[in-house]
Amino acid sequence: MSDSVDLDHNGLEVLDSVESFRLLNSARIGRLGLSIDGKPLVLPVNFVAEPDRILIRTTAGTKLTAALRHTAVAFEVDDFDPMYHTGWSVIVTGTASEVTDHDDLSPRVNTHLARWAPVTGHHVIAISIEQISGRRLVHVHR
Amino acid sequence: MSDSVDLDHNGLEVLDSVESFRLLNSARIGRLGLSIDGKPLVLPVNFVAEPDRILIRTTAGTKLTAALRHTAVAFEVDDFDPMYHTGWSVIVTGTASEVTDHDDLSPRVNTHLARWAPVTGHHVIAISIEQISGRRLVHVHR
Repeated sequence: MSDSVDLDHNGLEVLDSVESFRLLNSARIGRLGLSIDGKPLVLPVNFVAEPDRILIRTTAGTKLTAALRHTAVAFEVDDFDPMYHTGWSVIVTGTASEVTDHDDLSPRVNTHLARWAPVTGHHVIAISIEQISGRRLVHVHR
Repeated sequence: MSDSVDLDHNGLEVLDSVESFRLLNSARIGRLGLSIDGKPLVLPVNFVAEPDRILIRTTAGTKLTAALRHTAVAFEVDDFDPMYHTGWSVIVTGTASEVTDHDDLSPRVNTHLARWAPVTGHHVIAISIEQISGRRLVHVHR
């Protein structure tokens, strides 16, 4: 391990934005954090990451309502191994808004933003990546 | 599939509270959703589920601060298979508070609430399970 590794107050490795984005981009499922009337809600979603935003597909309802209000949201992805107590997490904060012009979407988005649920809407929500941070947990023998 | 399966507006199977709790109890990592000054935050945590509460261990900081304020929180666990587009998620909403009397904790909690991070505190946060809901995604050929 290099001397240049930054550790946070929990002893986790602090990842830079490039590595955080690489890990974000490697994930398929993330968790969208909303605050509705001051109460938090966390919803799993599949997504596609672009350099400056995260795109999710949704039906009308909670996620869309939030998006249309240009709401501050959080987005989290992680991958942990319970056996070895290793893994990483990345947290994004940004603002949600609806993508009304679907011509604005790359072919990759339309291909990869799979419709997992049997019924899905055609609404696409963009979350601006305003802040991105990541942590890595490396197993330590104790 | 039985005729009695409930589907939500996304075509996902609605799980009852018994099945939702069973799945919650099968997971090791969950995501804690907080609302801080109206802004959402999502943090991955390891946890132990009891019938009426979720227990997490934490150091001083964001999670603890929220807990001490008896804040409304959300808690999410999931397990999805990207290859087959199957999986499930469970969402809990409740109120966080600090467990000050550690004699109140079962031996199971002390054993299973593992200290994954190299540095961890001795604070234990309880999240009351006020609402629990679950969804299952079953692959449909389209």
